[in-house]
Amino acid sequence: MSIYEYVEALCEAAKKASVPLSVSSGETRARALLLMADELTAASDEIIAANGEDLAAAKEAGIGEGMIDRLMLNERRISDIANALRTVAELPDPLGVDEEYIRPNGLKIRKMRVPFGVIAMIYEARPNVTPDAAALCIRSGNAAVLRGGKEAICTNRVLVKHLRAALEKAGLPADCVSFIDDPTREGTNALFDMKQYVDLLIPRGSKGLIRACLQNSKIPTIETGAGNCHLYVDESADLDMALTVAMNAKTSRPSVCNAIETLLVDEKEAAAFLPVFAERAKGAGVEIRGCDVARKYIPDARPATDKDWDTEYDDLIIAVRVVKDVDEAMEHIAKYGTRHSECIITQNTERATRFQKEIDAAAVYVNASTRFTDGGEFGFGAEIGISTQKLHARGPMGLREITTIKYEIDGNGQIR
Amino acid sequence: MSIYEYVEALCEAAKKASVPLSVSSGETRARALLLMADELTAASDEIIAANGEDLAAAKEAGIGEGMIDRLMLNERRISDIANALRTVAELPDPLGVDEEYIRPNGLKIRKMRVPFGVIAMIYEARPNVTPDAAALCIRSGNAAVLRGGKEAICTNRVLVKHLRAALEKAGLPADCVSFIDDPTREGTNALFDMKQYVDLLIPRGSKGLIRACLQNSKIPTIETGAGNCHLYVDESADLDMALTVAMNAKTSRPSVCNAIETLLVDEKEAAAFLPVFAERAKGAGVEIRGCDVARKYIPDARPATDKDWDTEYDDLIIAVRVVKDVDEAMEHIAKYGTRHSECIITQNTERATRFQKEIDAAAVYVNASTRFTDGGEFGFGAEIGISTQKLHARGPMGLREITTIKYEIDGNGQIR
Repeated sequence: MSIYEYVEALCEAAKKASVPLSVSSGETRARALLLMADELTAASDEIIAANGEDLAAAKEAGIGEGMIDRLMLNERRISDIANALRTVAELPDPLGVDEEYIRPNGLKIRKMRVPFGVIAMIYEARPNVTPDAAALCIRSGNAAVLRGGKEAICTNRVLVKHLRAALEKAGLPADCVSFIDDPTREGTNALFDMKQYVDLLIPRGSKGLIRACLQNSKIPTIETGAGNCHLYVDESADLDMALTVAMNAKTSRPSVCNAIETLLVDEKEAAAFLPVFAERAKGAGVEIRGCDVARKYIPDARPATDKDWDTEYDDLIIAVRVVKDVDEAMEHIAKYGTRHSECIITQNTERATRFQKEIDAAAVYVNASTRFTDGGEFGFGAEIGISTQKLHARGPMGLREITTIKYEIDGNGQIR
Repeated sequence: MSIYEYVEALCEAAKKASVPLSVSSGETRARALLLMADELTAASDEIIAANGEDLAAAKEAGIGEGMIDRLMLNERRISDIANALRTVAELPDPLGVDEEYIRPNGLKIRKMRVPFGVIAMIYEARPNVTPDAAALCIRSGNAAVLRGGKEAICTNRVLVKHLRAALEKAGLPADCVSFIDDPTREGTNALFDMKQYVDLLIPRGSKGLIRACLQNSKIPTIETGAGNCHLYVDESADLDMALTVAMNAKTSRPSVCNAIETLLVDEKEAAAFLPVFAERAKGAGVEIRGCDVARKYIPDARPATDKDWDTEYDDLIIAVRVVKDVDEAMEHIAKYGTRHSECIITQNTERATRFQKEIDAAAVYVNASTRFTDGGEFGFGAEIGISTQKLHARGPMGLREITTIKYEIDGNGQIR
């Protein structure tokens, strides 16, 4: 069997399994997740052993410390994974009646929340995405086809074996969760072709991965993750608050998409704010790249180029630009932003409202860190990714965002 | 200026105009539609004259009667268009707060319904789509870039001129509605490239047009319209009802996507149902193509091939297949259906429920005609198209379906 045929058979089996799953009760789906948690806990030793193989291979390949840490599972991390599964099990069932109404001709119309069918996910090194994605898919009635990174292949193989065993114990087909056990690019390319069986593709990972999916997938794909986010310090900002929020948005986790990359400062606050910010930033190991005006106040900053405004550093680097007013700040964001998360620090209600209404982004903050753009922080209980597109879902995606709708109509012989 | 530059300038202007439109009040947007209705009514003579040019060109090109009728505008049709605009003006504003809640850390999160920004529509001959699409876009706060068929170019040019005049009277930028005044394919291809300015593309028209958009557009596109719909006569069906509904679903308007193309009949009802159906169908000028079993009861039916099950005739032709039971009917629909509208005629509640739950389609009917899949019939007040995809919108799309969401978050210095 070729890799293409292997992937095709796997996706066809997932489609078949998705039918009983889609009509299973919320209780059954929740129970499957609890059983998954138990299975993985019981299999800790086996999982850690498989993970050890991946770690050894990664070290041999000279992979960096950061990646090794993301790849590594231990007892505590497996217990965290199991608890995450239990949390998703307890979330309310996203499926069921959304609206129900009767038309003048007597037709009864029910707008139902239903699963997509089969959801494929392509992701990178972290093996905890495997049970996490499986849980969100199963809880929402979707079969999952998972394609994790080759670095985690041994770990994923064992994880998925146990997830499938738990599904069977719950009375659901094992094929509700499957795993493309092929480390080559051929497997991914085959998956892109499976529009007939797979209803939705969600990539999670680097910009390169997401771009490859958007360009090559024939399956409808949700764009996730690119975040060139800005924080604008307005004329009337509380500068202490601006400092605290800007530092948090840049440094609390610089590698994630909701961290800020560029600081915009009203020219009337530049002299008061920038030297203090520069000192704090440098103390935290943040490199500053500034426009010409900003560099008057931060003389040792490297000059920023157009490329800097356009770059998602995902690192302890920040670009700083002094702007004339909120209009220039909004123009900058419209030009360079990726429509993810944007923030204004201001005490002026009128400008706060203008910024919030006119900025085109998934999340627009007044006086709070962009780092809150996250399913958990928004109260969704879980997150399968952050959409940076406008179609279907925007911002953090929880269970509801991986459902679609169906109209069920009951009549007694109505014709038009 | 090349055609590409012309389309680019037009889309850029639409994007710019979309900002004040997106923050305008619901009253202003409704008023713009009422002014459009008045403008078009006052310009009836000019519109009819322009339409005359299109009609003359169409006749010269030897275009068929059906198309000529779709192209033609007269006083009554213009009055219908104006009334449709007034109806959309009266629909509730789809923009505003969807949900609002406060998180434990004090963050106030508002999930807002907001416009996409700029929506492009590509459509064919009927010029009434021009004001109709413009109205739905403006009512929902979206700028519209319209690309109508070349057959209607003179009519569309005049219509859009008056729509833009009405926008200005309402205090909105004229560029909120614009029209690609170029009859070549180059204009469409340029539009496909305008992802930077256009947020959503909705094609309306033939399968070929929709396929071209899906394959070539870089702008997110909603798939509309393909409808290979089925009606299944179950074992326990009320056969009089089955006859009435099947005839309605096939013949009331055979050219539309919600008409049925294939009739599936339980083998236990075939002898009682098919001869009566065949007589009625033939009386209505419907050609029947049957499977071998069906042809026992309808001896003069042409044999149906695999291609028939796969074909959306959009014509007075129906394929008929006798099936063993509801399972075989559902398998047939899963294999050949386009996930648009499907129907079961039955008195059996259990099979009705199974059919409704297990069939994967936008609208699943029990004992009613598939012809009801329509924004107006569903109570949306208007329709911009029927989505046959699962992402974003499914089934009839009204005003709400051409909006997206944005999270507005208010804090007082929260960090994570």
